[in-house]
Amino acid sequence: MRAFVTGGAGFIGSTLADRLLAGGHRVTAFDNFSSGQRDFVAQSLAHPDYQLIEGDLLDKDRLREAVRGHDVVFHLAANADVRHGLEHPRRDLDQNTIATFNVLESMREGSVRRIVFSSTGSIYGEPDVFPTPEDCPFPVQTSLYGASKLACEGLISAYCTGYGFSGWVFRFVSILGERYTHGHVFDFVKQLRADPANLKILGDGKQRKSYLYVQDCVEAMLLALEKQPQGYYVFNLGTDEYVSVNESVSVITKVMGVRPDLAYTGGERGWIGDSPFIFLDCAKMRSLGWAPRLRIAAAIERTTRYLLLNPWLLDRRS
Amino acid sequence: MRAFVTGGAGFIGSTLADRLLAGGHRVTAFDNFSSGQRDFVAQSLAHPDYQLIEGDLLDKDRLREAVRGHDVVFHLAANADVRHGLEHPRRDLDQNTIATFNVLESMREGSVRRIVFSSTGSIYGEPDVFPTPEDCPFPVQTSLYGASKLACEGLISAYCTGYGFSGWVFRFVSILGERYTHGHVFDFVKQLRADPANLKILGDGKQRKSYLYVQDCVEAMLLALEKQPQGYYVFNLGTDEYVSVNESVSVITKVMGVRPDLAYTGGERGWIGDSPFIFLDCAKMRSLGWAPRLRIAAAIERTTRYLLLNPWLLDRRS
Repeated sequence: MRAFVTGGAGFIGSTLADRLLAGGHRVTAFDNFSSGQRDFVAQSLAHPDYQLIEGDLLDKDRLREAVRGHDVVFHLAANADVRHGLEHPRRDLDQNTIATFNVLESMREGSVRRIVFSSTGSIYGEPDVFPTPEDCPFPVQTSLYGASKLACEGLISAYCTGYGFSGWVFRFVSILGERYTHGHVFDFVKQLRADPANLKILGDGKQRKSYLYVQDCVEAMLLALEKQPQGYYVFNLGTDEYVSVNESVSVITKVMGVRPDLAYTGGERGWIGDSPFIFLDCAKMRSLGWAPRLRIAAAIERTTRYLLLNPWLLDRRS
Repeated sequence: MRAFVTGGAGFIGSTLADRLLAGGHRVTAFDNFSSGQRDFVAQSLAHPDYQLIEGDLLDKDRLREAVRGHDVVFHLAANADVRHGLEHPRRDLDQNTIATFNVLESMREGSVRRIVFSSTGSIYGEPDVFPTPEDCPFPVQTSLYGASKLACEGLISAYCTGYGFSGWVFRFVSILGERYTHGHVFDFVKQLRADPANLKILGDGKQRKSYLYVQDCVEAMLLALEKQPQGYYVFNLGTDEYVSVNESVSVITKVMGVRPDLAYTGGERGWIGDSPFIFLDCAKMRSLGWAPRLRIAAAIERTTRYLLLNPWLLDRRS
């Protein structure tokens, strides 16, 4: 297939692009390099079936021209900064909601009608049901990030009903692995590299979170697309386990061989809108024959080693 | 209180403004007159506690200046055209999602932190549970209108969590009554006035819909605000009954004294994204002591009589 990957130079997008190329598909990566990295696409650029377009999803003309002629759009570009959303409330609206609308309109104009979308477990807000299934009680949004991803899901399903699109929406837990560029393992490794004796932890360290290894994530998306080639689907994507922030710190410090003093900012949440417990029910995705290969601890370990081998990622200005 | 009413010259907004003035409150109505009517505000303009500002919610500067100094915003302005959403997909994004973001940002900048919002039962898509409660299983959006209202709800709740706002979200069924300007009773009366012998009905006429009388709607909003003065709340607003489109036609034709031939376009739905059955569980709102005074048939009857007495509304270019 001819795949169009937004955020194609980012962590998950570039990993997906590599997998698609390896599977014999043609790939167009579209990225504005706001968080994407040239290093992540360097190898692909040599591949005859790969094309990179530098562009922004808010540039409708450029996007429209670029999308035309593809079979499926993997829409992974997003502002993924949940934590600082309140400091710049317009960002989630622009980069998630409006950007997704632009992607959908470009697809409609170019008669491209299949979209795979990276949503988030954050749209469950602070759920009452654990593990949280896709059809849990109608949630209340607690972050601008979650609210914007929910808005995107709504647009995608309305396009499926109204214009005959097919959509695959994946509600991710935090994704880990090679090319990981932001989030909580990143912050800890960065802190400990600068000062191995001290680690500041947001909240009380007891927040329970789920993670998934990026290759497992990419495999799930491709499998769902293959097994259910038409319609509208929503899948949770995570592992059948969770770890506390403190447990995650233990894995990281062990890999790094450091024993820092831990300082907690306190409180049940790391920041306003942080969900103290994320644990998704992934039975629906598993019923298609998928199972993650890496457990959470192994994914954290691998991610830590990757970051230590690629300190330029930690040092870059974000 | 000093109330700011967006869509203040519209059907529900102007009715609410009248009630607020009658209750001794000060009212600023903000309207771009895209569907609002000068006739609806003519009387209020003479009231010393009433101010009308002609402006558009996409004009951020004007809005920011206007919102400042109020205690509560009743955000009722919206593109409410569910049926033709697919013909102009940008409209719901602009007039609902982005307009609501602008309202919230203006409030934040002006330190106004209470918002009452008119959402819709359409955000339940095609639910499996009837009557549908507020916490029904996480729905799939089937219309751009529903998707945009869901996006607004998400923004409002995120502002409540993140910036200490309070929010009252009301998921309306179709509202009927004096000043009613669009929707299915409007279409039928308009058709029958032009040709009493023929009526075209979208779908098979068996769609089951709920309606609520506008004064009952306004009363519910004011009561909820009074009883639960802080926090984030979601309430369904409707009656404990529904009628089929055919039953609604019977009431209208009886009031008008006509016996038209009925022609059906066929199919379970009136248009793509039309929900064949809308019936909301309003126990939560009723638990605050509210109950609608008019039953659906009486509301349809009253609306029909109102339209017949105000043919200029039927004749206006929309």
